[in-house]
This record gives sequence, structure tokens and C-alpha cells, in this order.
Amino acid sequence: MDFVPYRHKVQYYETDGMRVVHHSNYIRFMEEARCDLMEQMGYPYGRLEAMGFGIPVLSVQCDYKQMTRFGETLVIGVEVTELSPTRMTVCYEIRDDATGSLRATGETRHCFLSTAGRPISLKREAPEAFEYFRRLLLASGHESEKATDAAQTE
Amino acid sequence: MDFVPYRHKVQYYETDGMRVVHHSNYIRFMEEARCDLMEQMGYPYGRLEAMGFGIPVLSVQCDYKQMTRFGETLVIGVEVTELSPTRMTVCYEIRDDATGSLRATGETRHCFLSTAGRPISLKREAPEAFEYFRRLLLASGHESEKATDAAQTE
Amino acid sequence: MDFVPYRHKVQYYETDGMRVVHHSNYIRFMEEARCDLMEQMGYPYGRLEAMGFGIPVLSVQCDYKQMTRFGETLVIGVEVTELSPTRMTVCYEIRDDATGSLRATGETRHCFLSTAGRPISLKREAPEAFEYFRRLLLASGHESEKATDAAQTE
Amino acid sequence: MDFVPYRHKVQYYETDGMRVVHHSNYIRFMEEARCDLMEQMGYPYGRLEAMGFGIPVLSVQCDYKQMTRFGETLVIGVEVTELSPTRMTVCYEIRDDATGSLRATGETRHCFLSTAGRPISLKREAPEAFEYFRRLLLASGHESEKATDAAQTE
Repeated sequence: MDFVPYRHKVQYYETDGMRVVHHSNYIRFMEEARCDLMEQMGYPYGRLEAMGFGIPVLSVQCDYKQMTRFGETLVIGVEVTELSPTRMTVCYEIRDDATGSLRATGETRHCFLSTAGRPISLKREAPEAFEYFRRLLLASGHESEKATDAAQTE
Repeated sequence: MDFVPYRHKVQYYETDGMRVVHHSNYIRFMEEARCDLMEQMGYPYGRLEAMGFGIPVLSVQCDYKQMTRFGETLVIGVEVTELSPTRMTVCYEIRDDATGSLRATGETRHCFLSTAGRPISLKREAPEAFEYFRRLLLASGHESEKATDAAQTE
Repeated sequence: MDFVPYRHKVQYYETDGMRVVHHSNYIRFMEEARCDLMEQMGYPYGRLEAMGFGIPVLSVQCDYKQMTRFGETLVIGVEVTELSPTRMTVCYEIRDDATGSLRATGETRHCFLSTAGRPISLKREAPEAFEYFRRLLLASGHESEKATDAAQTE
Repeated sequence: MDFVPYRHKVQYYETDGMRVVHHSNYIRFMEEARCDLMEQMGYPYGRLEAMGFGIPVLSVQCDYKQMTRFGETLVIGVEVTELSPTRMTVCYEIRDDATGSLRATGETRHCFLSTAGRPISLKREAPEAFEYFRRLLLASGHESEKATDAAQTE
């Protein structure tokens, strides 16, 4: 699978009094890139919601390397690095599009949930969607089997 | 009815690259003050939603008078200035709490909607809630009857 | 001058508890489209700031016509409708990109300011930048001379 | 030192299409609580900025335990858990104010910076401010000396 990296142009309202992007907005950029990846793989988040599933965020982590200014464009690499029938980990690399310099790295952990709020096995309830995520995991070059096994024991 | 004016302390993430509150945030402060007023009058917005009604925003208007900086506290006066069975207009005065100087004035216009998205007469469907808004209109000292009549002909 | 209309894809964090774009975000989309227009005309906002000028918002107005949902793309038309040496009015038409149906219309009024916060005549202080805005005014098909005259008497 | 825990009432614009607080907003609530603590200790962030210093965020981490809904009030406990002359770690416990149930825990890591963007020793450049943070560290009951030593070797 070949994906177009997600790009986000920084808006004025995303800057703060230090004249740089407020740190909370990187969390939003990570969501943008994650949704874009799902759309590129043919499974937009809205389609999953319509099927009765959600992928809430269990945790978020972000390391800020360099500040980003108004008008700059960020390019965000996304990888699925862990996948189990019930959970998923996604990693992000946020770079300045013009220079390639690293602005931030991040990670979000997710579970699969029914609309009613019950944790589910996506592998069993929506095998086709799960298969898409599995391909993303393989595409990222991480050792899928091991990751899957480890997560299953949770 | 006697209400405690709503106060909002400006947060760092609400400032922008000009080191002042981004103009879009005043629209949010107006929503905060509007919800606070409904709560003080004994009809929190969530209660209205639970009854199956919503009060979406039809239009918003804001005149910016002075800039507001991080750490300052805004005090927001709210008045219902027009009310009909199906619509409502709310006006706002946003001042610096320390000096009383005027920072912005605003207006939002609303209709009453069922959860299914159908315009309703709040006066008929939820007379008690409507009565609360009518008291707010009277409290604001605006000519209620005339305003009500004009809006009814819409 | 021929401009590419600005497009904004709605993100999940821009929706609210009614599962539609929160009304305050349209004010931000209008800023995005305004900055994009300035960039397309060869005068990005950052360049103006670097020259020592700002274009703060004096007032904002927005009429909401239809709700917008996560995943939809908005296309935003921008026009300069009034221009004087010291002030500018910009109008917006926000439509669903897929269907063309009107989601909102808006207007922002601006003045020209020095970095020190003093109102200035952009026509005198930065005639080249002013000329760009004048071309935008002409491109919008509004009667420029009259608009300019009227505003000059302020 | 005895501090009043920081409280944040959830606003409608902070919810998302799942009808709960969007996960990125907890990062903002943590900033609110951090700034409130600095103000309570007599060193508001604006005062530090006026002295020529900043405390940018190096990293942020948040574990989401339970969802939060519109109208609920969060109470946020803040502790300084590590301090060195050049760096600081702050931890957060975010609970529902009505029930005390845990909604999220978080951590932010910071460095001390001059306005010019150069890392500084706050202990040397602003010993009084540093002393305030040291008292917060002691108040949190963490082993201050060890934490300080470890961080100094960076």
C-alpha cells in the first residue's frame, strides 16, 4: 500500500502568544493524519462509525522537537505499530515540509468500541476493517505477529 | 431575576501570534455566558437537550473594541432581547473585569429545534422552558410584546 | 486575477455534541480562506507582518444556513467588497464542495495597523500591498470607486 | 503551601461528535491548571514572561480513563514531580468534581528558556522563581534531592 503523506498548513488561529503552534494542536494534527490514512486505505472513520464502531483514544504522547510558525506546512508520517483484535497503536512523525526537519514525534493508543460503548474484537465483529489495519501494520515494517501476540495477552 | 455575571479567565491557548485573544474565541465566550445564564435560570442546556430540544445558532455577530491579553478576566453580560415562540435573540457585552473597559459586543440569533431537526414552537412544546426565556426577556427591559409580535410574523 | 477557491476538509475535533461543525469554527475557516487569498495574490499575511503591518478584525458576522458534518469538504469563496486607505471589508460564501449547497455566508471588517498598534493608511505606507487589495476589490466586481470614497469619509 | 485545586467546567465547544470532551482538550486543561498553580504560588506565567523567561513544553503525555460530558466540572490536581536548574516535570490528576472518579492522568516536561530562545538555568538566572518551584516539588512529597540530582546530570 502506498500512501500520500498527510500535509497540514499552519493557520494563524493555531499559533499562541509565543508566535508558534500551540502544543495542544499537534494532538489534533495527529488525529487529522490518522483519519486521512484511514480514508486513503478505503475505510474512512465515518464509515466505521456508520457500521457501529468507534476507535477512541486511550492515551496520547508527544515529544516536541522544534517550534512551528504560522504559514509553514507540516508533513505527517503515520504508522500502525501494534495491532491486536481489540487494540491498536499508531505512531507519528511530524516534519517541516520545506526542510524536512523534525518538529515532533507522537504516539496514540486506541481500543475498538461498539457505539454502545462496549469493547469489542474488531477482528471478529468487522473482519474486513481489521484486515485493513493489519495491512497497515505490515506496511509499517514492524514485526506484526509478535506485536499482535503481545497485545492479545492484555 | 438576579444573575451573577459570567466570568472567563483568558488562557494561554486562547491567544494567537499577536499575543491577544484570537477573535474566534469571543464567539465561544458568548456561548459560555449563554449556557451559564440558562443554568442560573434553572434550565441548563443539557436539560433542554434531554427533553428533546436544541437551540442552534442561526447567526452570530461580534464587534471587537479592544484586545484582550493572557491572564486577564472577562466579565460577560447577557440579555435576551427578542423572543418569539420559535426564535430568540441574545446580546452580549464583554468587558475587562479589572477596569470595566469594553472589549466586545455581540449578538446571536437562535431558533428552537426538535432533536429530529424540525423547527418547533417552544411556547407550545415546552411552555415551562419558554416561560423562563420570557422572564429573561422581561428582565432585560426590552419591549417584549413588540419583539414577540414581530418575530411571530416570520 | 484568477484564484483557486479555498477548500477546508472538516476534522473530527471541529465537530461538537450535535455531531456538526461548531459554529465558532466557521469564523476560523473564514480566516483560513482570507489568508489563502492573500497568499495567492502574492502577499501572504506573514510578509505584511514582516513589513510591520497587521490587519486586525474589527467585526465578524456569520449567517448559518445548513449544518456541516465530519468528513465533508467546504469550499469558501472570498471577495474584497469595500476598500479605503485605512479599512477593508471581506465577504465569504461557504459551500459544501460535493453538492454546492450553501452552508454559511459571512463578513469581516478590518483596519490596517502598524505593529506598534497605530492605525495607518496602507495606501500611503505600503502602496504596493494596497494596490493588491485594490485589484481584489476590482476582481469582485463591486463598484470600487464609490466604496473607496464612502470609506474614506470615516 | 496550600492550594485550591483548579476546576474547569466543560463547555459545549469542547465536546466532539461522540458527545464527549475531545481528547486534545485535556492537554489544554493541564495547561490551565499549571498556570493556575503558578498564579496561586505568586508567580503567574505572565510575570515570568515579563522577566524574559518562558517554560515551553518538551513533551506531553495523557492517559484517558473515562469520558467527560458537557456541563460536568473537572477538578485537576497538579504536582511538580521533578526539578533541576534547567528542567521541570509536572503531573496531573483529572477527576470529575461531583463523583471524584478519575477521568485522566497526565504529565508534561518542560525546560526553562530565555525569551531569545536559549536554554537557561532558572536557578541562576531567576533564583527567586526557582525557589518557588522547589517549594512546589517539596509540597508534592516527591524525593526532591534525588530528582534534582538526576536531572542535573542531563
